[in-house]
Amino acid sequence: MDTAWIISTGNELLIGRIANTNAQWLAERLTLYGFRVERIVTVPDEPEEEAQAFREALRARVVVSTGGLGPTFDDKTAEAVAAAYGRPLVLNEEALRMVREKYEAAGMGLTPERVKMAYLPLGSRPLYNPVGTAPGIYLEVRGTHVFVLPGPPREMKGMFTESVEPLLRRVAPKIYWCEAGFTMKGVAEADFAPHVKRAMRLSRRVYVKSHPRGRETGLSVVELHITASGPDPEELRVEVGRVLEALLEAARGAGGAVEKVWGPVVRRPWGGAQA
Amino acid sequence: MDTAWIISTGNELLIGRIANTNAQWLAERLTLYGFRVERIVTVPDEPEEEAQAFREALRARVVVSTGGLGPTFDDKTAEAVAAAYGRPLVLNEEALRMVREKYEAAGMGLTPERVKMAYLPLGSRPLYNPVGTAPGIYLEVRGTHVFVLPGPPREMKGMFTESVEPLLRRVAPKIYWCEAGFTMKGVAEADFAPHVKRAMRLSRRVYVKSHPRGRETGLSVVELHITASGPDPEELRVEVGRVLEALLEAARGAGGAVEKVWGPVVRRPWGGAQA
Repeated sequence: MDTAWIISTGNELLIGRIANTNAQWLAERLTLYGFRVERIVTVPDEPEEEAQAFREALRARVVVSTGGLGPTFDDKTAEAVAAAYGRPLVLNEEALRMVREKYEAAGMGLTPERVKMAYLPLGSRPLYNPVGTAPGIYLEVRGTHVFVLPGPPREMKGMFTESVEPLLRRVAPKIYWCEAGFTMKGVAEADFAPHVKRAMRLSRRVYVKSHPRGRETGLSVVELHITASGPDPEELRVEVGRVLEALLEAARGAGGAVEKVWGPVVRRPWGGAQA
Repeated sequence: MDTAWIISTGNELLIGRIANTNAQWLAERLTLYGFRVERIVTVPDEPEEEAQAFREALRARVVVSTGGLGPTFDDKTAEAVAAAYGRPLVLNEEALRMVREKYEAAGMGLTPERVKMAYLPLGSRPLYNPVGTAPGIYLEVRGTHVFVLPGPPREMKGMFTESVEPLLRRVAPKIYWCEAGFTMKGVAEADFAPHVKRAMRLSRRVYVKSHPRGRETGLSVVELHITASGPDPEELRVEVGRVLEALLEAARGAGGAVEKVWGPVVRRPWGGAQA
């Protein structure tokens, strides 16, 4: 299965100032595109630490990073990517044009800090930023597709939708994602564990995860989440449906109350669910 | 400086079902304890992937992981830690006692799924879980202190406060954390970048990070965050204060409007700020 890594750069994440909502958003998008997100790595604003993560990430087919593309002294992701993959950092004409046009439209000129954002690793392609000024970076390294996006969520999402998705569609596996779930009350997670194990044997594609929400020894509340991915959406729907039914029956048989049953739903990356 | 790694286990994080708020909470706590959080790694519920992260994490002085300690088939963190550090998984008497007491208090007996939670890597110490049933794991591996906590946030926080902090205090550096900040409107981040660079030269301890909140080419809103850590809280307050003043002057000099000035505040890990 095609794998993806997410690299998040920013000291603000490592001191706990903010939660990594960018990674969550990207993880969901990449999953819907059929990738198996294998690792999310958060590193500080230091080129050596960043470069190490970018080198390790070559194990994946697709790498998406966020952060470190801005105009300040500690925005060093372009430098880190260049170092990681042994490519010099060069002024990219297309990126410079993007930066210049952004500032000119606002009646502002170029300064060294602004021009800095147009230096990309040799052989990269700039990604248009529909919200902010810093272009993103796309490059292919030994079969791995690397997308480098800015950190502010609006810029990251805008660039992903506008510039990354068209490229991603070309390399994404033709795979669908299907899910279903329900909430079970009154059965301890540990007691339900054998049923989960048994239900998963009904299909080699389907994965079941139970999430305890209450207290194991008090009123137990467990959320069941059933997921599957594969090339045939109808087949997925059938298999997820079969596992869902088996689990519902087991939950009721164990004396549990079942609530909020949903799915099977086949989700598509271009937004929205298909019931 | 003493470093820390956070390892988050859970497919639910890698498919974007939830944001990694556990890592944010832990990152803040570890920072306040004087550690430099160097990496946050999220891995799937697979022992090989988990084990690899635990091995890599030996670069740090302290490792805190969350997730994969429950009773279901895919809770495999204990197994992964055992494999990572070459220690057999053995039934820990103290852990079994903890598990048994939890279930007995609720009028429930032991089952294989419940006993599973008492198997720990050889040489580990169980960590009491004040909220749920799964004990945590503490072990020292070649000078690295490894804490393995459950994934549900209430259990993770309860165990950290009750069982991890007392152990952490013994190994934590005697270091304080000080911060300050303000919001600047009307100056583009790129234009303010040279002032940030200059202000940071006022103290080798102080770190300044600017976070764009508005549009670089529209109404620019930039949050400035000034941080420092060191052994002397009074010295930190003075140094952070000096950098704060320099930045406020620069912001006003550049024609910016300054809002929400706060700090310097010295924060302590045992909760609350000291003004």
